[in-house]
Amino acid sequence: MSSTFGNHIQISIFGQSHSAAIGVVIDGLPAGEQIDEEELQRFLARRAPGQSDLTTARKEADQVRILSGLYQGCTCGAPLAAEIENRDVRSRDYEKIADIPRPGHADYTAHVKYGGWEDYRGGGHFSGRLTAPLCVAGGIAKQILARRGIGIEAAIDEIGGVTYEEAVAGEDVTAGKDIMALPAAWTRMIATVREEGDSLGGIICCRISGMPAGVGSPMFDGLENRIAQAVFAIPAVKGLEFGAGFQAARMRGSENNDPFCLDEEGQVATATNHHGGILGGISSGMDITFRAAFKPTPSIAKEQDSISFSRGEDARLSIQGRHDPCIVLRAVPVVEAAAAVALLDALAGEGKL
Amino acid sequence: MSSTFGNHIQISIFGQSHSAAIGVVIDGLPAGEQIDEEELQRFLARRAPGQSDLTTARKEADQVRILSGLYQGCTCGAPLAAEIENRDVRSRDYEKIADIPRPGHADYTAHVKYGGWEDYRGGGHFSGRLTAPLCVAGGIAKQILARRGIGIEAAIDEIGGVTYEEAVAGEDVTAGKDIMALPAAWTRMIATVREEGDSLGGIICCRISGMPAGVGSPMFDGLENRIAQAVFAIPAVKGLEFGAGFQAARMRGSENNDPFCLDEEGQVATATNHHGGILGGISSGMDITFRAAFKPTPSIAKEQDSISFSRGEDARLSIQGRHDPCIVLRAVPVVEAAAAVALLDALAGEGKL
Amino acid sequence: MSSTFGNHIQISIFGQSHSAAIGVVIDGLPAGEQIDEEELQRFLARRAPGQSDLTTARKEADQVRILSGLYQGCTCGAPLAAEIENRDVRSRDYEKIADIPRPGHADYTAHVKYGGWEDYRGGGHFSGRLTAPLCVAGGIAKQILARRGIGIEAAIDEIGGVTYEEAVAGEDVTAGKDIMALPAAWTRMIATVREEGDSLGGIICCRISGMPAGVGSPMFDGLENRIAQAVFAIPAVKGLEFGAGFQAARMRGSENNDPFCLDEEGQVATATNHHGGILGGISSGMDITFRAAFKPTPSIAKEQDSISFSRGEDARLSIQGRHDPCIVLRAVPVVEAAAAVALLDALAGEGKL
Amino acid sequence: MSSTFGNHIQISIFGQSHSAAIGVVIDGLPAGEQIDEEELQRFLARRAPGQSDLTTARKEADQVRILSGLYQGCTCGAPLAAEIENRDVRSRDYEKIADIPRPGHADYTAHVKYGGWEDYRGGGHFSGRLTAPLCVAGGIAKQILARRGIGIEAAIDEIGGVTYEEAVAGEDVTAGKDIMALPAAWTRMIATVREEGDSLGGIICCRISGMPAGVGSPMFDGLENRIAQAVFAIPAVKGLEFGAGFQAARMRGSENNDPFCLDEEGQVATATNHHGGILGGISSGMDITFRAAFKPTPSIAKEQDSISFSRGEDARLSIQGRHDPCIVLRAVPVVEAAAAVALLDALAGEGKL
Repeated sequence: MSSTFGNHIQISIFGQSHSAAIGVVIDGLPAGEQIDEEELQRFLARRAPGQSDLTTARKEADQVRILSGLYQGCTCGAPLAAEIENRDVRSRDYEKIADIPRPGHADYTAHVKYGGWEDYRGGGHFSGRLTAPLCVAGGIAKQILARRGIGIEAAIDEIGGVTYEEAVAGEDVTAGKDIMALPAAWTRMIATVREEGDSLGGIICCRISGMPAGVGSPMFDGLENRIAQAVFAIPAVKGLEFGAGFQAARMRGSENNDPFCLDEEGQVATATNHHGGILGGISSGMDITFRAAFKPTPSIAKEQDSISFSRGEDARLSIQGRHDPCIVLRAVPVVEAAAAVALLDALAGEGKL
Repeated sequence: MSSTFGNHIQISIFGQSHSAAIGVVIDGLPAGEQIDEEELQRFLARRAPGQSDLTTARKEADQVRILSGLYQGCTCGAPLAAEIENRDVRSRDYEKIADIPRPGHADYTAHVKYGGWEDYRGGGHFSGRLTAPLCVAGGIAKQILARRGIGIEAAIDEIGGVTYEEAVAGEDVTAGKDIMALPAAWTRMIATVREEGDSLGGIICCRISGMPAGVGSPMFDGLENRIAQAVFAIPAVKGLEFGAGFQAARMRGSENNDPFCLDEEGQVATATNHHGGILGGISSGMDITFRAAFKPTPSIAKEQDSISFSRGEDARLSIQGRHDPCIVLRAVPVVEAAAAVALLDALAGEGKL
Repeated sequence: MSSTFGNHIQISIFGQSHSAAIGVVIDGLPAGEQIDEEELQRFLARRAPGQSDLTTARKEADQVRILSGLYQGCTCGAPLAAEIENRDVRSRDYEKIADIPRPGHADYTAHVKYGGWEDYRGGGHFSGRLTAPLCVAGGIAKQILARRGIGIEAAIDEIGGVTYEEAVAGEDVTAGKDIMALPAAWTRMIATVREEGDSLGGIICCRISGMPAGVGSPMFDGLENRIAQAVFAIPAVKGLEFGAGFQAARMRGSENNDPFCLDEEGQVATATNHHGGILGGISSGMDITFRAAFKPTPSIAKEQDSISFSRGEDARLSIQGRHDPCIVLRAVPVVEAAAAVALLDALAGEGKL
Repeated sequence: MSSTFGNHIQISIFGQSHSAAIGVVIDGLPAGEQIDEEELQRFLARRAPGQSDLTTARKEADQVRILSGLYQGCTCGAPLAAEIENRDVRSRDYEKIADIPRPGHADYTAHVKYGGWEDYRGGGHFSGRLTAPLCVAGGIAKQILARRGIGIEAAIDEIGGVTYEEAVAGEDVTAGKDIMALPAAWTRMIATVREEGDSLGGIICCRISGMPAGVGSPMFDGLENRIAQAVFAIPAVKGLEFGAGFQAARMRGSENNDPFCLDEEGQVATATNHHGGILGGISSGMDITFRAAFKPTPSIAKEQDSISFSRGEDARLSIQGRHDPCIVLRAVPVVEAAAAVALLDALAGEGKL
């Protein structure tokens, strides 16, 4: 099943870019959890287009309607279903890609897999729009986790090869790592590539605090495996590292090993955190940290080489439509959502919710 | 479940470093597949210690005994079970870690999760030794995949921050990227850290050829998700990237997008392969490529800081026992095995075996 | 997860009796399957109340709205989501059961499991109303199976201990085994118990024709196991038997064994079909037959003994509301639906769709 | 996957009747559970042949060897693997069935499914012998459940259509419902059919005491669904009913509904137990009761009709080999084992172990 996740709390995401609605069913939530729908809506707003003029011009309020699973504002043990109507749909923008697959997109691979029956409009089920229901599930998971002292915060580490530290050097000392307050250097870069009909990628980091030690499993069902399964569901993610990650591969054992120590309250901690809060697939009680690499938005206005299915020959393609020049800006809450559903599932599986 | 993998062909790995045996059950293999046990044994030999004096001194023939699932040398539809006896077990080496957890290991997190009931000897179920049954499953998967024209080949890309290209610069032009023929520069580095009681990490790349287009799924069950779930099961892996991976995050869309074209036989291909053979979670027919980052072996002879469970205070630890100064050397077939079980499962799930 | 089913084509059912909507997500359907929505609606109508004056007075058009998964009337590979609005909701009928659990219902067990957070109105997620989305999934599955020559037909075998043969004896030779044309004897029985504020149960049989031989698995994932998992999801089912079932336990081996023979086309068949089309969990190519026992509707007007949660003492309960005196009448398509989703999943798992 | 069971504690069974060994891996057991291997062996002995001269002449000590998962006699969190060697193997008895499938067996359906690659000897993976590893898992589960006050006891209710009450009428008032002390009437019946080269079936009932209320789920993952999935894994089971089961279908609602009341300790209970301890898929705290119908042993000495694969024509078959005239006698612990693994999994899934 392509679009279900979780062994204990299972989410099942549905929808295409241009279907009547998109949404999610979450089965297995603990009963008695108050869900703050306004807070959920604010979380979704962080992903929605229109927060900045650097994002797509597609307008979607992304108003969530909860269909089931709540009683008097709290989870009641029944599966929680939520839907978001698709409104601002302009299918004609996509007529061309039915015949000429867009480079860097799933148009071609979906065409082969589904034998030409796929809903290609707007990328169908492969659209970044499907991260909205992931954020519904993740936003709900975040509320439940927060009640247990677990916080999840993602931020932009790098855009187009320029790190945050480089971007703020000499200026912008108050700039943030989020879409609402980007360093001017990044903003200029994104505006430039947009004008050029091009796009940028970047790296998002995520930090999870308050995770109790002892959650997770060795081998295939560890926290790294679960988070990876969730994070690689985000379109455009091509890399993932925990703690020191690829940099750890360049250190010596004596540098990379995090010495155990006792913290001020006498709890076991580590003096450094190269392990990113996970050892043997199990949480150590230190912050869980990971970084995800996003490729540049594949939809670009610049003309590209492709092929024509119908004519069986080379073709040129210039993508129309409304696209983000740097999807990283809107992906920050999506990374949080992916982490949230993975951790909620892990905690549920050990009876620790 | 910690140690089971696969939605269609499921592997279930068992054993501890010092238990009577380790092994694996594989359920769901297609019937009628000839299994070459000698070839399997040769595949396992690539992982076994003793091929080089740069590996651990623990001697294990790692002779596989197939208990079920074959009839007259071919799979018969019943689950295939295989075991490897543990022979060269020196449990006394590990007495100390029952009380003082080794930095960089799962000793502490297992202790919390299992409440002190864990088998700490040699790392128990968290031991790198458990990659042997993974290789049994992977070796069998490789034979089945090879029969369908799918080849999986891993190699060492980097050790201790020195790339293969750097290692062979000016010398060693015939050196390989495998344990049998390492560049002299790498060999010297490893010998040096071993003398210093330290260790090195590295990066392993993997290339899968012959994968048909159209296999995989969007969202949570794509090839990237599955391979990630399998590869992060290998102890010491802290990062994973597909195709251009983290480097893609630094390119522009116009650079990173792989133009579609028609190859000599008129098949759709891409002119470059930054996408690493996977678009939208589905194979494109191009080679699947990924790289996994291994942290340095956490078991080092150098004295380290830790704590004592029993005394509730800081403690110093100097790890005895027999360890690999650079586990990367023996991990090459393990990466192939992880990829093989993931791909076999994906193909089975689509009725394409 | 309580409300998901399937290893290959997964259905996830949501909704409560009085939530905004009920519905289902189906993930993993093959692409390119035409879905006839009118036929689906007709299938649902067989389950809907109001076909007969022997059913509940609750009025629900049960109009299905497909939210995603189709493109130009055919499945497109993306999950298919469908919802049915709840309209004729009279929650005040249920105020009492918040405190006094109804005998034979899940009110008490849900109360314990969900700690008082359950949505008790109309039985919440435990309501028979949730068989409507099961019928949506089943109706779609039936269309896909029919295209492959597989037919599923259920019928009423027995009501209140009176078999169909007994009911039609001497009269009614043209009566059917479905709600549209019941034998007069059954109709009278049901009318009588309704007047008495009581209810009846019964037995539904199901026959699946056209199932190819060789589908299914030994042990836990056989056709009997899967069908059982699906059929026991129907509220009120307390028994299930395949082929000769409980009667087989009273035969000798020489009677019960079905001799193999060659049919007119030279295909292997069996001369009798006590095995109900399944041997070793795998289809034999003969019709699959099973029977499900339904307990009498637990909601009855007659006063019953129960307890009061709030007062911690015995209490009497007389159930108001609108109930079916014999739920068996409307359960016939539900049994077909359960069988259909189970078989579709089994076929998908073997790449045979 | 055919031979894996469980969503939280997963068992994976392997082996064929004539493979080197049979066994099971259990993944997800809680750590710190003492396993009494002698008690386990005694539990297995109840299933093993040779307790009575009414069982097969095949001699198997069924000595379990635990390969992993224990440390100092207790579960350590790692998967528990156990194997039983196959010793008394007489494959030549089965040469004929390679060509002539035995009526009532899986020989034919396995042949179709596995394309002729199946290990037909002794029924291969379909053999009743595979209930031995199920009993290993079940025996371990029973020990863990017993420590929590949950007892599982199965017994024979009926053989060849003669109930226990009928069998002991006028005699045998001290006879039991187990193989060790059968009523003389049953013993005579079995001896008679054996002489006639025939066999008998029967019904086994099972009672689970001490199950806490509130465990289970609505719809597809309720206790009835799980127990059904496990019990239908036992070869020869063709029917299953919970509580009053098929008899409930013949009662009125006012009879079948179990009134709630308060027991002596003020706990909610029911005055009767027609619901068999499960309402809405969730335990009510009353004893869980179910009955399983076993068809007569299909292997009989009497000559039977079948067909020949190789000759494509009708054939006669007289089964040689060593068979039980009434498999029900040895199936009693197997039913307990199936129930035990189902309940252990359900409890684990809710964090209640």
